[in-house]
Amino acid sequence: MKAFSKDTYSKRRDILKKNVESGIIVLMGNQESSVNFKDNWYPFRQDSTFLYYIGIDIPDVMAIIDVDSGEEVLFGDDLSIDHIVWTGPQPTVQELASEVGISKSLPLSKVEEYIKSASGRNVHILPPYRPENTVKLQSWLGKVAPSEELIRAVVKQRSIKSKEEVAEIDKAVTISAQMHLEIIKNARPGMKEHELVGMVQGTAVGAGGTLAYPAIITVNGQILHNHYYGNTLKEGDMVLCDTGAEASSHYAGDLTRTFPVSKQFTSEQRDLYQIVLDSQNAAIDMLKPGVKFKDVHLTACAKLVDGLKTIGLMKGDTAEAVDAGAHAMFFQCGLGHLMGLDVHDMEDLGEQFVGYDEPKSTQFGLKSLRLGKELEAGNIVTVEPGIYIIPELIDLWGKEKKFDQFINYDKLNDFRDFGGIRIEDDFVIDEEGHTLLGEPLAKEIKDIEAIREASFS
Amino acid sequence: MKAFSKDTYSKRRDILKKNVESGIIVLMGNQESSVNFKDNWYPFRQDSTFLYYIGIDIPDVMAIIDVDSGEEVLFGDDLSIDHIVWTGPQPTVQELASEVGISKSLPLSKVEEYIKSASGRNVHILPPYRPENTVKLQSWLGKVAPSEELIRAVVKQRSIKSKEEVAEIDKAVTISAQMHLEIIKNARPGMKEHELVGMVQGTAVGAGGTLAYPAIITVNGQILHNHYYGNTLKEGDMVLCDTGAEASSHYAGDLTRTFPVSKQFTSEQRDLYQIVLDSQNAAIDMLKPGVKFKDVHLTACAKLVDGLKTIGLMKGDTAEAVDAGAHAMFFQCGLGHLMGLDVHDMEDLGEQFVGYDEPKSTQFGLKSLRLGKELEAGNIVTVEPGIYIIPELIDLWGKEKKFDQFINYDKLNDFRDFGGIRIEDDFVIDEEGHTLLGEPLAKEIKDIEAIREASFS
Repeated sequence: MKAFSKDTYSKRRDILKKNVESGIIVLMGNQESSVNFKDNWYPFRQDSTFLYYIGIDIPDVMAIIDVDSGEEVLFGDDLSIDHIVWTGPQPTVQELASEVGISKSLPLSKVEEYIKSASGRNVHILPPYRPENTVKLQSWLGKVAPSEELIRAVVKQRSIKSKEEVAEIDKAVTISAQMHLEIIKNARPGMKEHELVGMVQGTAVGAGGTLAYPAIITVNGQILHNHYYGNTLKEGDMVLCDTGAEASSHYAGDLTRTFPVSKQFTSEQRDLYQIVLDSQNAAIDMLKPGVKFKDVHLTACAKLVDGLKTIGLMKGDTAEAVDAGAHAMFFQCGLGHLMGLDVHDMEDLGEQFVGYDEPKSTQFGLKSLRLGKELEAGNIVTVEPGIYIIPELIDLWGKEKKFDQFINYDKLNDFRDFGGIRIEDDFVIDEEGHTLLGEPLAKEIKDIEAIREASFS
Repeated sequence: MKAFSKDTYSKRRDILKKNVESGIIVLMGNQESSVNFKDNWYPFRQDSTFLYYIGIDIPDVMAIIDVDSGEEVLFGDDLSIDHIVWTGPQPTVQELASEVGISKSLPLSKVEEYIKSASGRNVHILPPYRPENTVKLQSWLGKVAPSEELIRAVVKQRSIKSKEEVAEIDKAVTISAQMHLEIIKNARPGMKEHELVGMVQGTAVGAGGTLAYPAIITVNGQILHNHYYGNTLKEGDMVLCDTGAEASSHYAGDLTRTFPVSKQFTSEQRDLYQIVLDSQNAAIDMLKPGVKFKDVHLTACAKLVDGLKTIGLMKGDTAEAVDAGAHAMFFQCGLGHLMGLDVHDMEDLGEQFVGYDEPKSTQFGLKSLRLGKELEAGNIVTVEPGIYIIPELIDLWGKEKKFDQFINYDKLNDFRDFGGIRIEDDFVIDEEGHTLLGEPLAKEIKDIEAIREASFS
C-alpha cells in the first residue's frame, strides 16, 4: 500500500520536526467522498501531504506529530469482525503505523482529547480543502487558522524531489505519454471527444493508477477550462489533449499535445504550431538551478510574440509588447507549475508559499502564472506555452482598441475560429540543467503527421 | 445538457406540488468535489433528485418550489466576462431555467433571504449526503431536519419509471453489458485486475457517461466490499465482475458476471455457479406487480439451500434453514435493490421510505436486503443472488457451531478458499410481469465458456 520504505517516511518526519520550532502538527487524512448518495464513493484519494509524511493510503486515518517530545501518533479505528466479513482481513491501525515507523496508535475518538492536551502550545494545521476536514478542525480548534510555519516547512521539503520520487514521476509521465500516443493514433473524423477520453482514462486506470486531473480533450482548445466532451471530430479540426496519469504511487504526469484530425495540419495550423513549439524550446533551454521561472515564462512570451509578428498577428517591439502584456491576447495563462504528488504541486498550501517569494504580478496573463521563483535542483516543472484565439477576448479588447500598437486586430479577426494549441512536457531540474521526464512523445510537426499518416493505413 | 423535454420537468414538479401539502421545497444541487486540492475536481455529479425535477446538470445551482403560490425559482450566478474568457460563452441562469420551464431566477446570494421570507411555513428539505450541503442548510435553517412528507412524495414519483426513463436505463444496461463482454473476452492469466478495470472504465467513459459505482473486479469475489485491484489473474481463478455504466442521462446499469480465468470452470466452480444461476432464475420468474420483493429474496435463498444440499454443503429442512437464516453463511446480503438515477435508487432518502413499508428484519443476511416491499409496475430492480465462501465467517460461526444442523462445516472447510460467485441482471416490472433490460449478456455456463474458448483462439 505504501510507495516507499519505512525509513523514508521516518526521515521525512524527522526533517519536518527540525523545521517546525515547537508544538504539535496535525496531519489530516482524507475520507471517502460521496457521489450521489453517502455510500457511493468517488475513487478514494489520500491527501498528498499525508501521503508524503505518513504514506498510509486508506481513508479515515490521521496523524499528530509532537515536535517537542518527538511523539508520533496514528489515529484510526480497527475493524470489527462484523466488518471483516465484508472487507476480508485488514491490518490493524497499529500494524499500519508500524509499517511506516510510527510506534503509537489511538482510536479516532481520542483526537480531540489529544489536541486539547496540547492546550497552550502551538497546534499547527494545513489549510483544509475538503469541507468535512474544515468542519472537524473547526470543532476541535474553534477556528481554522493554518500555520504559516508548517506550510513553509512542508513546501521546503516537498519542493525538492528525491531520486525515488523522480523515478515515480518518470513512470507517471511515461504512462501519460502512452495515453497521448494512443489517441494520436486512434482519433478519427466522426468520433466524439468522449471516445478519446475513454481511451486515456482506460489506459491510466489499466496501468494501476488513475487520471491526475480531469482530461481536457477538445476540438475547442481555446477554451482553457474545458471539460465538455460532446463535440464530434471533423476534418480540419485540431484536437488539444491535456491529460496525465497519476501512478499507483500517486505521483502525477501532465502532458499536452495538439494534433490534426486530418492526417496533416493545415498551413495556418502549421504556422501557429511551430511558433508554440519554438517558444517551448526556448523556455526549456533556460531551465536550470538559479533561473527564475518568471523569466523563463517571459522568454517564452517573447518568443511567441516574435513568431506572431512573422505572420502579421502582432507588431511593434517584442520586449515592449511583453512588458505591456499584449501577448496575453494569445497566451492568457502561465508557462507552467511545480508537479509532484499533486499535478499543481501543493496548490492547497497556497501559491504565495509554493510558487513565489515575492508578490505576484497582477497583470492579465502574468497573474495566472503559478510559479515565479528561482528554480532549484530537485524541482519538477511543466513547460506549456500555447496560443489560444478567444473570440470573446478579441471582442472585449478590440472594442477598446487595447494594445492596438501590438495586436493586428484586422488580421486576428480572420483567425477568430482558429481554436487553440498547447504543447507541454515535464522536466526535473538537476545540477546539469534539466532532464525530460518520461518516454519522449512526438511533438515536431513531421513526427506528429507521420504517426497520423501511419495510423490511417 | 438536459435529458428530457421542458414539459417532462414541469409535469414532474406539478405532481410534486400536489403531493406536498404546503410550504416551500428546497432542492439542493451539488457543487464540485475536490480531490487533492480545491480546484482539482472529481467528475461532477449532479444530485439525482435535482436532476429528476430540474434537469440542470451543472454545479452551483439550486431550486426552491413554493407549494402554496406555485412559484419556482432557480438560484445560480451568471458568469462575468472574465470567466467567459476561460470557459467560452455559457447560457445565463435565466436561460437555463427557461429551458426546464422555470420562469424565475435569482443569484445564490438571495437564497437565505428567500428561505427566511418563508418563515413560519414548512421548509421541506431532503437529507443531505455531501458535507458542504449540510453546512449550508445548517446555516440557513439552524438545523438540518429532513421532511418526511417531501421524502415520501419524491420516493412515490421516482419509484415509478416513465417509458423515457426506462429507455435511458435500457441504454445504460446495454453499455454495461458491453463492458462485461469486453473483459470476459480479454481477461488472461497473468493480467492484473486493474487492467480489466481500465477496460470497463474506458468503455463507460467512451460511451459518453461514466461508471455508475466503483467497479468490483476481483479474483476474491467472496470479499463483498472489494475495491482492491492489485491481484494477478491465475489459471483456476474466477473473476467476479460487478460493474455498470451511468449513461450520459445519468441513469444507471448494474450487472454482475463471474467467469473463469481458464477457458473453463472447474467442476466445483461449475456446481456452485449452476446453483446461483438456478436461484437467480427462480427469483426472476416471480417478478411481477403485487409480489413482495422480500418473498422473492427468500425464494432465491431457498433455491440456494436446495442446491447447496445436493453437494453436501448444507443439510436439513430448506424452509427451516432459510427461516433461521442459516443460508447467510453463503449469501450474506440482499437479492437486489431499486435502480434508476442512482444505482441504489434514492439510497440518500432512507431505506425505510424507499425499500420498506414495514420494519426491516434484523436477522443477519435479511438486514442487508435493501428492498422488501411489494413490487409495482414501473419499478426497476436488480436480481443478484450469490454464493460467497468467507473464511472469517466459517471460523466465527464454526467456533460456536452456529446452525450446525443446517451447515456441514467439515465439507465447507474444504471449500474455504473457493471464492465467490454472483450473477446479476436488471429488470423493469411491467403489467405483464417483468422485462430484462439491456442487450442480453451470456450467463449460462456453456455460453460463458464458449466466449472464453473463442477469445483465446
